[in-house]
Amino acid sequence: MSSVWGRNLTITVFGQSHAEAIGVVVDGLPAGLRIDEEELQTFMNRRAAGGAFATSRKEPDVPRIVSGLVEGVTCGAPITALIENTNVKSGDYRDLKDHPRPAHADYPAYVRFDGANDIRGGGQFSGRLTAALCVAGGLCRQFLKTKGIEVGAHIASIGDIRDTLYDPVAVNKENFLTDNFPVYDADAKAAMQARITAVREEGDSIGGTIECAAVGLPAGIGDPLFDGLENRLASRIFGIPAVKGVEFGNGFAAAELTGSQNNDAYYYDGDTVKTRTNRHGGILGGISTGMPLVLRVAIKPTPSIAKEQETVELSTKSGYALSIHGRHDPCIVPRAVPCVEAAVAIAIADYLV
Amino acid sequence: MSSVWGRNLTITVFGQSHAEAIGVVVDGLPAGLRIDEEELQTFMNRRAAGGAFATSRKEPDVPRIVSGLVEGVTCGAPITALIENTNVKSGDYRDLKDHPRPAHADYPAYVRFDGANDIRGGGQFSGRLTAALCVAGGLCRQFLKTKGIEVGAHIASIGDIRDTLYDPVAVNKENFLTDNFPVYDADAKAAMQARITAVREEGDSIGGTIECAAVGLPAGIGDPLFDGLENRLASRIFGIPAVKGVEFGNGFAAAELTGSQNNDAYYYDGDTVKTRTNRHGGILGGISTGMPLVLRVAIKPTPSIAKEQETVELSTKSGYALSIHGRHDPCIVPRAVPCVEAAVAIAIADYLV
Amino acid sequence: MSSVWGRNLTITVFGQSHAEAIGVVVDGLPAGLRIDEEELQTFMNRRAAGGAFATSRKEPDVPRIVSGLVEGVTCGAPITALIENTNVKSGDYRDLKDHPRPAHADYPAYVRFDGANDIRGGGQFSGRLTAALCVAGGLCRQFLKTKGIEVGAHIASIGDIRDTLYDPVAVNKENFLTDNFPVYDADAKAAMQARITAVREEGDSIGGTIECAAVGLPAGIGDPLFDGLENRLASRIFGIPAVKGVEFGNGFAAAELTGSQNNDAYYYDGDTVKTRTNRHGGILGGISTGMPLVLRVAIKPTPSIAKEQETVELSTKSGYALSIHGRHDPCIVPRAVPCVEAAVAIAIADYLV
Amino acid sequence: MSSVWGRNLTITVFGQSHAEAIGVVVDGLPAGLRIDEEELQTFMNRRAAGGAFATSRKEPDVPRIVSGLVEGVTCGAPITALIENTNVKSGDYRDLKDHPRPAHADYPAYVRFDGANDIRGGGQFSGRLTAALCVAGGLCRQFLKTKGIEVGAHIASIGDIRDTLYDPVAVNKENFLTDNFPVYDADAKAAMQARITAVREEGDSIGGTIECAAVGLPAGIGDPLFDGLENRLASRIFGIPAVKGVEFGNGFAAAELTGSQNNDAYYYDGDTVKTRTNRHGGILGGISTGMPLVLRVAIKPTPSIAKEQETVELSTKSGYALSIHGRHDPCIVPRAVPCVEAAVAIAIADYLV
Repeated sequence: MSSVWGRNLTITVFGQSHAEAIGVVVDGLPAGLRIDEEELQTFMNRRAAGGAFATSRKEPDVPRIVSGLVEGVTCGAPITALIENTNVKSGDYRDLKDHPRPAHADYPAYVRFDGANDIRGGGQFSGRLTAALCVAGGLCRQFLKTKGIEVGAHIASIGDIRDTLYDPVAVNKENFLTDNFPVYDADAKAAMQARITAVREEGDSIGGTIECAAVGLPAGIGDPLFDGLENRLASRIFGIPAVKGVEFGNGFAAAELTGSQNNDAYYYDGDTVKTRTNRHGGILGGISTGMPLVLRVAIKPTPSIAKEQETVELSTKSGYALSIHGRHDPCIVPRAVPCVEAAVAIAIADYLV
Repeated sequence: MSSVWGRNLTITVFGQSHAEAIGVVVDGLPAGLRIDEEELQTFMNRRAAGGAFATSRKEPDVPRIVSGLVEGVTCGAPITALIENTNVKSGDYRDLKDHPRPAHADYPAYVRFDGANDIRGGGQFSGRLTAALCVAGGLCRQFLKTKGIEVGAHIASIGDIRDTLYDPVAVNKENFLTDNFPVYDADAKAAMQARITAVREEGDSIGGTIECAAVGLPAGIGDPLFDGLENRLASRIFGIPAVKGVEFGNGFAAAELTGSQNNDAYYYDGDTVKTRTNRHGGILGGISTGMPLVLRVAIKPTPSIAKEQETVELSTKSGYALSIHGRHDPCIVPRAVPCVEAAVAIAIADYLV
Repeated sequence: MSSVWGRNLTITVFGQSHAEAIGVVVDGLPAGLRIDEEELQTFMNRRAAGGAFATSRKEPDVPRIVSGLVEGVTCGAPITALIENTNVKSGDYRDLKDHPRPAHADYPAYVRFDGANDIRGGGQFSGRLTAALCVAGGLCRQFLKTKGIEVGAHIASIGDIRDTLYDPVAVNKENFLTDNFPVYDADAKAAMQARITAVREEGDSIGGTIECAAVGLPAGIGDPLFDGLENRLASRIFGIPAVKGVEFGNGFAAAELTGSQNNDAYYYDGDTVKTRTNRHGGILGGISTGMPLVLRVAIKPTPSIAKEQETVELSTKSGYALSIHGRHDPCIVPRAVPCVEAAVAIAIADYLV
Repeated sequence: MSSVWGRNLTITVFGQSHAEAIGVVVDGLPAGLRIDEEELQTFMNRRAAGGAFATSRKEPDVPRIVSGLVEGVTCGAPITALIENTNVKSGDYRDLKDHPRPAHADYPAYVRFDGANDIRGGGQFSGRLTAALCVAGGLCRQFLKTKGIEVGAHIASIGDIRDTLYDPVAVNKENFLTDNFPVYDADAKAAMQARITAVREEGDSIGGTIECAAVGLPAGIGDPLFDGLENRLASRIFGIPAVKGVEFGNGFAAAELTGSQNNDAYYYDGDTVKTRTNRHGGILGGISTGMPLVLRVAIKPTPSIAKEQETVELSTKSGYALSIHGRHDPCIVPRAVPCVEAAVAIAIADYLV
């Protein structure tokens, strides 16, 4: 059931990198919601284009919605979007299966699926499936907007270069960035891009972090203990390939603080209870507080690198020196930004449908 | 449905801090499993006693198993354990409800439950419910042991003091620590304890991190994309109060590395595929690789501190200066160690029942 | 996960006939609901006493609510009710396990649980667990009442004796029966009771059917296709031991009709759309129509009969002539009436919490 | 979440009658299973063609599998099948929406989806979606066959004409019928077909029942109480439009019997425990006994009839005399036979993947 998510809003993602198509079924959005397909495409394009900060631009993924809409309006039936995989040339992939790529899912997938896993282009482990995720997320974003809730993310770091211009109290939809390399600090942005260019030239790759906020979420959304906002958000975000960590509010930094440093004081702003700081990230006890929901996600460096690596040859149970060819994103962080937004939007929408 | 977890192994936790009882229903463990209640109690005691590294020792929580066992052996029916709450004196809690404690769930719970939430002792948000979690985890540990899988955790840091003696490749069940303040580096341990003593004397509290490994897990356990090991593990671990972040393998540190630094080389150790390093933490693509599964959890400082804090008075919509009385753990990290082990054991057991 | 039910309202039933306790955890009822424990007990008593239409009366089952209420009001935490099993004398049950009783679950349970199943008193297959179901159902009934929805059932038949005084259009909460042998037609009632007396004297048992209505349910509750009202209702009702069939509206009788005989004409009663007849049973396409929801349940005769029966001896793989001793209900239909009401209330409440 | 089914085997059905496509995502079948697409198509054709026992034959529905297979073998990723809806002419359907058809889902769907429901061709309530169900069922049948389990159904009655040549003890895969009007008794078959012809000429329709067996299922599959075989089977079968009742073994007939008449005696057939009769239908306590699993399903008469019917006009809140035009199956029972087989195969497969 690994491809199905959610309770009242169910997301079923399907496809493999080189299957005929990938896609998603979104079940549970309310009927009567007008879907803006252009806005959806704009969101999709952020994922498609960001790979190398606007170089080697690919054609955008264009989802074809085959069910769930009547004249552009949801009818209550599940919405299904298809993205056909064209121009797929798989070639001979048996050699590939015999030499699992380090830090990819090749080897555990081989064991899990008794060698029958689809290795072509990474199969169902491919980052390509995040296109389906973004369709679902894009639809949920449009639903959330009708409730006054918006989700926005930025690149918080590439390697050790950080975007420090971020205020978890003041963040709001007016200052969300929507370009393909969203960084608030222009100097940091330039340094990040230079860094990516450098690792690419070395045949290497690099990781980074993404910071995401949901604003407009009222207090009182979520559940205590074992099915709260953090539980659901983390569960969905870890569905994005290459994510190795998720933290809320101060996150791991809170572990170094004292209570008096970490607690956020409450006050009244008119009739609204707010906190003066937002170290809790808008969630306490699994339930929203009304402050911006803020989380950060760790993205590991792309495992596919040109440099030669040590691996094994499964058929002979021996060692093997692997060189991975082809073009790979030297850094998937920019393209993962809308994916994080999508996962967050999906998780929150499940509470509100 | 916030109190129910799992697919094939279902954990239902119930109770509030000052309810007559707390407890748990564990459904799905195989029939015919002999439960060692003494071993279970030993595990429970680690949670109960660790509060202040062996000072102010409380009586251990003794679960009473009321269903699911016949002469100490599972019969296939759900196992239910009760822990009665004795000596509970709630007093007048209306005043408490009017002044939400910073960084506690009081305020969002008040909104979520329309003011009807049980505020006494923190209600269902209380850390006390982790006793129920540990019963479930203790049972799952015994099940996993029959499969050769064991789970062990240690305190990785308190504040900025770290236990650096940890090797994610070599970790194994022989070197798991099971005392109430499990730290490998004796100097670090002493410094951590001194730090906790210091913050307690200041009426403050402090956070920390816990590192946990599951060993003996074969390769091929898990699922791709959206219901993989990370998804499920994170979802369960965030059920522990005060957790603000979860990371696997190198986690957030991976975000600062290049691919050539972060990828783990494969090699054959006899017939077994292993990795020379373990930056991936035993999981790739949501599926186990056969290497130790390693994760870290960020625990925020206890929100209840003696120092005066700014909060609001809900009834008058005004400000309020709050002083929290009573004894509180200055650091819940030691007591959270078996809770993390429990959550990990539960998540893994769900795949194997 | 056989003991957990539901999506937004989760019911976890636990216990075996001779375990220390049975009980239920109800998670998802809204906070702020005042529970009338006396009304709950009255409902429970209908199940407890009806066994032989007021003879051999047993003490009522008294649930002890150990969590989820604060001063009689739901607080949002799961409600847990315990019923202690007192005076349980199991004796030597190994002989029992070796000779599976016909039409009981003994044999398939033996296979399913590798011989470790709890055979004492029927274990978790015992009708006793319906006491826990009735606690959950009784709580849901009180919740539904706040929405104007009530559930009532009657004995529709015992053997081939039928209660014909039932109108699925006019049924309403004013004419629900709540005694322990609820039959509208007094002559049929007397005949049914005489029939039960007769089979009891023969050391035999007899089956029957129960008809249940939910009234006050507005149109538009439910879902199309695979998670609709019938799906959920049937799934929950088959959780009651001895149920062998469920039908809605005309049910199996509809299979003998033509469309012109079976279709219900629509008309306006003031502003409300109604149907002149109610052969559809208040559900079309998985969604309520606003007419009374009507269903019928087939209850098989109690399998435990005094008459000698042919079975096997598992240890020797040979035949065995079995005589079942002890007192058994000659007809469980009367006691199953509140159980059906409970299952229906639980299924409907899940949509409305 | 009405379009998603299952725990370890998840079935997501999507589409509406006049959407661009309908289809299904099947997640959880084991990797390495070779799919025989021709056999799948043969199964699909039984649903497509049976409408009027071989008259007015339509082209078969040809599913296009777009994911989950590599060279005809499952790879562990979800299998997605699409059936494009060609030649769909919806015309003006607003008039249709204003006059809900009796016994169709039009009216409750209108309320449920605030008037935004897709009324064209019945939308997601259309029997057309059972084509997607049959794809999933056809795949599950192939999986079950590798376990020695087969599922077969026949028409048990049309109106009051019954196929009496059926033995629930002796039923086995050798005597399953696979033609488009599967009836064992040739006389009954002829009478049924004559009856359907007659009602069609009268502009009317007629209902019937389907009897289905699963053979080869070993003892011990299922779960007690609330998630057993009956619960899951019933839940899935009620997903087929027009089903109004489900019964197992003797079903409603058991309600008229005594225990001594209804209990099935156990005996040893070699090393295998069997029952001499099969009134229990192969399930006791939610768990299989090893005898053929036998159930019956009530199918109501097709609601669409040519005869004028009374309904309402929603826009004016007044009465309306409705005549339904177009060709409709006078009896959907034959086409529902493979649908029941599909639902049963899906429900059983979920336990065995």
